[in-house]
Amino acid sequence: MAQKKLGKQTFKFSSNPIISSEAAVVGPMEGKGPLGEKYDMVLDNTFAGENTWEKAEQKMMQYSMELALEKKGFLPSDLDIYLAGDLLNQIISANFTARFLNTPFLGLYGACSTLIEGLCVAGILLDGGFVDRIGVSASSHHNTAERQYRYPTEQGTQRPMTAQWTVTGSGSFVVENSGSGVILTHATIGKINDMGISNANDMGSAMAPAAFDTIKAHLQDTGRKPDDYDLIVTGDLGLLGSNVLKEMMRREKISVDNITDCGTLVYSSNQDSHSGGSGCGCSAIVLSSHFMGKLLAGEYKKIFFVGTGALLSPITSFQGESIPSIAHGIVLEYMGGRQ
Amino acid sequence: MAQKKLGKQTFKFSSNPIISSEAAVVGPMEGKGPLGEKYDMVLDNTFAGENTWEKAEQKMMQYSMELALEKKGFLPSDLDIYLAGDLLNQIISANFTARFLNTPFLGLYGACSTLIEGLCVAGILLDGGFVDRIGVSASSHHNTAERQYRYPTEQGTQRPMTAQWTVTGSGSFVVENSGSGVILTHATIGKINDMGISNANDMGSAMAPAAFDTIKAHLQDTGRKPDDYDLIVTGDLGLLGSNVLKEMMRREKISVDNITDCGTLVYSSNQDSHSGGSGCGCSAIVLSSHFMGKLLAGEYKKIFFVGTGALLSPITSFQGESIPSIAHGIVLEYMGGRQ
Repeated sequence: MAQKKLGKQTFKFSSNPIISSEAAVVGPMEGKGPLGEKYDMVLDNTFAGENTWEKAEQKMMQYSMELALEKKGFLPSDLDIYLAGDLLNQIISANFTARFLNTPFLGLYGACSTLIEGLCVAGILLDGGFVDRIGVSASSHHNTAERQYRYPTEQGTQRPMTAQWTVTGSGSFVVENSGSGVILTHATIGKINDMGISNANDMGSAMAPAAFDTIKAHLQDTGRKPDDYDLIVTGDLGLLGSNVLKEMMRREKISVDNITDCGTLVYSSNQDSHSGGSGCGCSAIVLSSHFMGKLLAGEYKKIFFVGTGALLSPITSFQGESIPSIAHGIVLEYMGGRQ
Repeated sequence: MAQKKLGKQTFKFSSNPIISSEAAVVGPMEGKGPLGEKYDMVLDNTFAGENTWEKAEQKMMQYSMELALEKKGFLPSDLDIYLAGDLLNQIISANFTARFLNTPFLGLYGACSTLIEGLCVAGILLDGGFVDRIGVSASSHHNTAERQYRYPTEQGTQRPMTAQWTVTGSGSFVVENSGSGVILTHATIGKINDMGISNANDMGSAMAPAAFDTIKAHLQDTGRKPDDYDLIVTGDLGLLGSNVLKEMMRREKISVDNITDCGTLVYSSNQDSHSGGSGCGCSAIVLSSHFMGKLLAGEYKKIFFVGTGALLSPITSFQGESIPSIAHGIVLEYMGGRQ
């Protein structure tokens, strides 16, 4: 059997699990952003025809999974298993989407790293020979996250410049054990990192050490260098967090030439997001639309994509705790046209 | 390669993943219950030396994992990966325990089914050849759950007789790819079930259809009958939910002779728990202490253990939704003395 574990934290998938379809559904602000043309569906407003934002978020997740399935002519019943999670308490967007899909379901929670956690577990299930076809989703919604994690939305609290804007959007992926296109070759599972940041309006700085730790572990485990990748992409460090990450890498003499962050790509500078985008939806929609597109077009051949999660809890913050963070990474490689 | 998927929802682990150690840490009420002598540690009070119940719950999870490791002479760094979750928002008990352990970590959320979800994923990782040794934990705490899901604890709201008492306790397991003792032979991954129950004080009835669905799927997938098992154990249906499950099984002419439920075993009838125990900790401590003990003593040779989770969300309940539920099952088989 081929070596499946590299070093301490990395799995190598020799069976070529393949992302065969993906879709992104986003809110109006994301639709007006620089990647607006690339999303599969842009909502007219933040309610998606529902009467609460929580129900709207669930619908976005459902629509993105349905769209990803439709592109391949699949029904929900064609999925062997569904892996999903979101930022809301009890991962309600995922639970109700799984209720709709009616497939075997594993609920995941890794804050904004959840999509990549799901893709890691998908790789494990496929490469382990357990299933043939998996659905993976993650979502976030600015208004549901804001009122759960920070202030009542009606309060209109001024956001400091270090704050990021939680993306309203969901990305879903179909991952299969055969085909061609973009393959998932490695997964690096993160450890919790906590440098003592306790400011819920500076999540980027809280997450940067986790991203750094996972990138470093990945390079050690695989014996690769940053320039073995066309790009190393982080999920939602934002402007401030990205700078912290780059500074940490420079201090250990790791090249930062090809690093970018979904949180810095999802909004334009005139959209008043402050330090950029964040949330499970941020990495999910930017990977699904922008980076999958670039890979499928052959513009990038190999990227290392790191989902970054700040495991912020209002209750432990009130009780004096800092914000533990985690980052999981996957390698995506383009292997020629999609079937 | 041996057939790993049976039917629609079941995985067969041919490599014999083995539970090599386990430990349960419980609160004072659980210590006074009928299984009190079997737990590894009984706390003097519900605070575990901390100043909040949330911190106490985290300590219970940490202590149970440390005890399980100690029994085998392992350190946290001997774990390749840690899988855990709990009932609290952002699974804070698991996150902070993972921060302490400093191992690669995947956060899971399946409400009270989380322990069994973790053991399912452990089986997948071991049988897939990805790792050699895994830690799995789940916890709950009566006082943290009550104030998060129902009423402020100070309010002293009268509980209806259909209500269950959330167990204060945590169970942790070490699962490895070699040794002897109790092996994990199958995992059946559940689907979301929702029969429209919306009463947060009758979770047993909400979960019973999920347990039924998973038991039925397992029997279909494996071609087994209930009496192929010494016992079919559910996690926390309680008295009322267990009766609903048995009624559903009788209607489909499935034998209910060897069914029991951890929620009906964890407290004695004079402990005022009403419909029995519940919570992630319920199945975790009863499996760890009572059923693992019975298996290791050779009293049971083969059991099917079904973790039952009511994915209750206060916010979706306020918005008019019912309580979706899920159940995951594992087969545990005794193969001779533990090394």
